[in-house]
Amino acid sequence: MTTIRSMRVLDVRFPTSAALDGSDAMNPDPDYSAAYVIVRTDAGDGLEGHGFAFTIGRGTEIEVAAIDSVAALVVGLELEEVLADLGGFWRRLVSDSQLRWLGPEKGVIHMATAAVVNAVWDLHAKREGKPLWRLLTEMTPQELVALVDFRYLSDALTPDEALDLLEARAGGRAARTDAVLAGGIPAYTTSPGWLGYSDEKLRRLIREALEDGFRHIKLKVGADVDEDVRRCGIAREEMGPAIPLLVDANQAWDVPTAIDWMRRLEPFGITWIEEPTSPDDVLGHAAVARALHPIGVATGEHCHNRVMFKQLMQAGAIAYCQIDACRLGGVNEVVAVLLLAAKFGIPVCPHAGGVGLCELVQHLAAFDYVAVGASWENRIVEYVDHLHEHFVDPCIVEDGRYRAPTAPGYSAEMRPESRTEHAFPRGGVWVAEAGAAR
Amino acid sequence: MTTIRSMRVLDVRFPTSAALDGSDAMNPDPDYSAAYVIVRTDAGDGLEGHGFAFTIGRGTEIEVAAIDSVAALVVGLELEEVLADLGGFWRRLVSDSQLRWLGPEKGVIHMATAAVVNAVWDLHAKREGKPLWRLLTEMTPQELVALVDFRYLSDALTPDEALDLLEARAGGRAARTDAVLAGGIPAYTTSPGWLGYSDEKLRRLIREALEDGFRHIKLKVGADVDEDVRRCGIAREEMGPAIPLLVDANQAWDVPTAIDWMRRLEPFGITWIEEPTSPDDVLGHAAVARALHPIGVATGEHCHNRVMFKQLMQAGAIAYCQIDACRLGGVNEVVAVLLLAAKFGIPVCPHAGGVGLCELVQHLAAFDYVAVGASWENRIVEYVDHLHEHFVDPCIVEDGRYRAPTAPGYSAEMRPESRTEHAFPRGGVWVAEAGAAR
Repeated sequence: MTTIRSMRVLDVRFPTSAALDGSDAMNPDPDYSAAYVIVRTDAGDGLEGHGFAFTIGRGTEIEVAAIDSVAALVVGLELEEVLADLGGFWRRLVSDSQLRWLGPEKGVIHMATAAVVNAVWDLHAKREGKPLWRLLTEMTPQELVALVDFRYLSDALTPDEALDLLEARAGGRAARTDAVLAGGIPAYTTSPGWLGYSDEKLRRLIREALEDGFRHIKLKVGADVDEDVRRCGIAREEMGPAIPLLVDANQAWDVPTAIDWMRRLEPFGITWIEEPTSPDDVLGHAAVARALHPIGVATGEHCHNRVMFKQLMQAGAIAYCQIDACRLGGVNEVVAVLLLAAKFGIPVCPHAGGVGLCELVQHLAAFDYVAVGASWENRIVEYVDHLHEHFVDPCIVEDGRYRAPTAPGYSAEMRPESRTEHAFPRGGVWVAEAGAAR
Repeated sequence: MTTIRSMRVLDVRFPTSAALDGSDAMNPDPDYSAAYVIVRTDAGDGLEGHGFAFTIGRGTEIEVAAIDSVAALVVGLELEEVLADLGGFWRRLVSDSQLRWLGPEKGVIHMATAAVVNAVWDLHAKREGKPLWRLLTEMTPQELVALVDFRYLSDALTPDEALDLLEARAGGRAARTDAVLAGGIPAYTTSPGWLGYSDEKLRRLIREALEDGFRHIKLKVGADVDEDVRRCGIAREEMGPAIPLLVDANQAWDVPTAIDWMRRLEPFGITWIEEPTSPDDVLGHAAVARALHPIGVATGEHCHNRVMFKQLMQAGAIAYCQIDACRLGGVNEVVAVLLLAAKFGIPVCPHAGGVGLCELVQHLAAFDYVAVGASWENRIVEYVDHLHEHFVDPCIVEDGRYRAPTAPGYSAEMRPESRTEHAFPRGGVWVAEAGAAR
């Protein structure tokens, strides 16, 4: 038997605010960061599991404290027992009778669960010598259903329905696996559209995105409606009429404002409006969706658990489901949401960017395509060209598509020198920042 | 000018799990705790503001880290500027562009906001020499509206509507203030109904509660339906048919289970079912409410912000609004929810118990009665007879009613010796526990 011997937690931050990368209506100055965890065992095989919560600077220290507390439930467990019942493992973590008061299943504590759960999945996939998506697509429908905590879901999806759905799509898995390996995963890019960029930079980045093979462009909106009209006009000039234009308000609006503002942008042919209002407002998203149809409402990067996604789907509030690999409670809860989306016929378009999110979601999208959603129709995965160089197995995007990852694991592992250099506050990058500020 | 000089954060825990006080379907072994904060200024007047997040043991250390991080935004501010614009102060804390990623406005980070905000309100009331509820009831409708962050609320309640509502009820404030001072605040007790208690203890505690003047009894349910039927029967034997019986499932059920289970308890004449399912499930609560009418659905102790309460009200999901003084973002957000409840005509019955929650909510209920809800109809405040002895200004409940608090402040201050003795892990109580466990 193998014992989980330690979970080391790190505070890793990148000084991205200096360049206005990632600036939007709600996040003017993010320092993309990770509360990072490394699982080690006594197996002597040299394998480690890596996971993280994506954060944006201040507060990473809170997430580090939370991961430490969740990790305390895991250190000392027998790894084989954990891996034999990953559904039970997940349920045990989110059900801790004292920690759950801090959520339940939301925010800091749930992101800590995700980091720990994902690190264990990374280790699992490395031990099996497979990329995570292959590990998942080779599980039987029964094994996949057993990963999911159906508590609070049964009014929308029962285990039997999930099983039927997976079995009905099992026959096509081999062909779809081949298709992913050959053709990759469709992507779209947010890189051109950050609010802090000049018009010249916007135009140049859109042209580059199109040359790079992307067939969707996303702009941040929500700070000033006249500016947004102007920038959408610039984007359409560069894009032409055929390329889908996505806009993202990052929760800037109340429901009536969302509707009024988007009426101004409607003439530019908008495919989706992302995060029009509070991520908690299921009924608000539904009202926006009804008013703006056929513009689709997209949300999910702040959707904190499967119960919220269930309602967004039940209420007809979203046309696109934007799961986040680190805000949902890790792989297990992502599988739950993929199943819900398949039941409701809603395409899943994962949120990415930040630190390492692209690396993670490529696995989730590939698994969804092969085993659950079983289609690329209306499905695209976000891609932002930031910080990939810090990962051991960085995602590779070519001609507008992620190449299917092939290295064993969840592609979550940050390079040791990057972890050291960006350790907060004592890594070399931060010591230099402090010196420059002086 | 006065400067906020420090915010000291403490981890205070009570070993309540030893006695099964507070045991319910989800929380079998809570150690009632507080992540506690003390605001000090350079005024030289000896006044401190006290606030806390209520927690239940493990994880208090995470909340302590979060309060430290939120406090860092506050130390160094000029107190008079803060107090002159408490609405702006609240908005600034929840809008921190990096910390908000950890919520937004939910869970650990929002409870930290609450602790800091409530500590500032405690200090404000002490400086004014008034109990918090008097400070609030003496504010003009305009001043009260200015406390509220209406972001994400305007589809349900606008500032103008809130102003109209407060002005319409301003005329009766003086008479209602006299009524609160003379007659107190109606309470109900949860003390008899914890799941861990024996039948004998249940009977005895119900009899004692009725003798003590309580006119509602609440039982915990949700672990075993036959047991619940039996315990409701015992309760009715002791209570007779006239006293309202409340039951609380603490999120134990899925929606279909909630409906089936409650049909078994219907014959016992249930007034409300509290927390039938996930606190995030607005649509689920609405389905339960439709199915079980006229049994009312009550929820709120895990309802994380005003946007969730807004939806519970919009959807017709709750008949009773159970605000929590420490989970909502402090006094400001409580005022927002009281206004929403008044708009929707839903009675507010605050959640209490734990550590210090009774001390806080008596102020909120008194303020609601005097200035917002303006009625006691269907309004009762939870009371649990635990841990009050640790507070400097403990609530006083006599003949089934809280006596209106009169000491300056928010009654949030824990006795210094209690803080020292229960400091975790080095206070005397915990050193003794560790010794006994050895």
